[in-house]
Amino acid sequence: MLRSISIALALTGASIVAFAAHAQDATPSAGGTDNPVQSRQAIMESFGASAKVGGGMIKGEIPYNPAVGQLVLATLDAGAHTFAHYFPEGSDTGDTEASPKIWQDMEGFHAKIDDLQEATTAAVKAKPQDLDAFKQTFGKVAKNCKSCHEDYRVKKD
Amino acid sequence: MLRSISIALALTGASIVAFAAHAQDATPSAGGTDNPVQSRQAIMESFGASAKVGGGMIKGEIPYNPAVGQLVLATLDAGAHTFAHYFPEGSDTGDTEASPKIWQDMEGFHAKIDDLQEATTAAVKAKPQDLDAFKQTFGKVAKNCKSCHEDYRVKKD
Repeated sequence: MLRSISIALALTGASIVAFAAHAQDATPSAGGTDNPVQSRQAIMESFGASAKVGGGMIKGEIPYNPAVGQLVLATLDAGAHTFAHYFPEGSDTGDTEASPKIWQDMEGFHAKIDDLQEATTAAVKAKPQDLDAFKQTFGKVAKNCKSCHEDYRVKKD
Repeated sequence: MLRSISIALALTGASIVAFAAHAQDATPSAGGTDNPVQSRQAIMESFGASAKVGGGMIKGEIPYNPAVGQLVLATLDAGAHTFAHYFPEGSDTGDTEASPKIWQDMEGFHAKIDDLQEATTAAVKAKPQDLDAFKQTFGKVAKNCKSCHEDYRVKKD
């Protein structure tokens, strides 16, 4: 029962006060759902990898390729559609760069992610075919990274 | 209240039968949490973009670059840590390629995603620096895609 509650709490950004019952206590696997900190860090790793490749193409260090450009944007879009779900109450301690401000101002944090999602949704539809088009599209997404990191990230080391 | 319940249900792969209460009915935004079908489709788009770039590098159509290789693997890893959470009961209809088998055999579906996650976790740590290393690493991940699609996907058009 405790495991069921912890999984459910881990999965919801909203505040659930109590559960009346749980149908299946013996779930052998939650398909990787057990650790919201791991999930959000995996998303953020993919964001970092996207920024590195997107920035590398813009700087001319990596040749532009439309399929690679689309991968950068699709990765950011997948993260924008999932990231908010991995900040349950109690996951603000330990090895995390997530600022306590996230839990103090979940509404503001969600608003930032909504902005990001709006930008990434447009970006994947844009399908930039050359570097100039990619620069414009990527730029509109990337400004959301900076804005959110300034408010809600505590950079370590 | 209905919105709160639907968000909570949308977020949990486990089976929650009933909620007793909800603390915050006026949540103005769930940070992109409202539509699990959109979330899982965004993840799957990022998987498709990863497969295209990974396959393109292996075929020699896209020059190998370690940062691009890492983006392919990190994107698959982020998806492996999140995908299972977006198949709530009732999300099996409409514009989806998700097979009804997912809901009939959630345990088997989760086991597939656990296998994928194990492969992607190892892959991102491997950090392949050349195409030969990437081929090996990517191959171990990609076989999971095929295996899961055969059982749990209904390909449309």
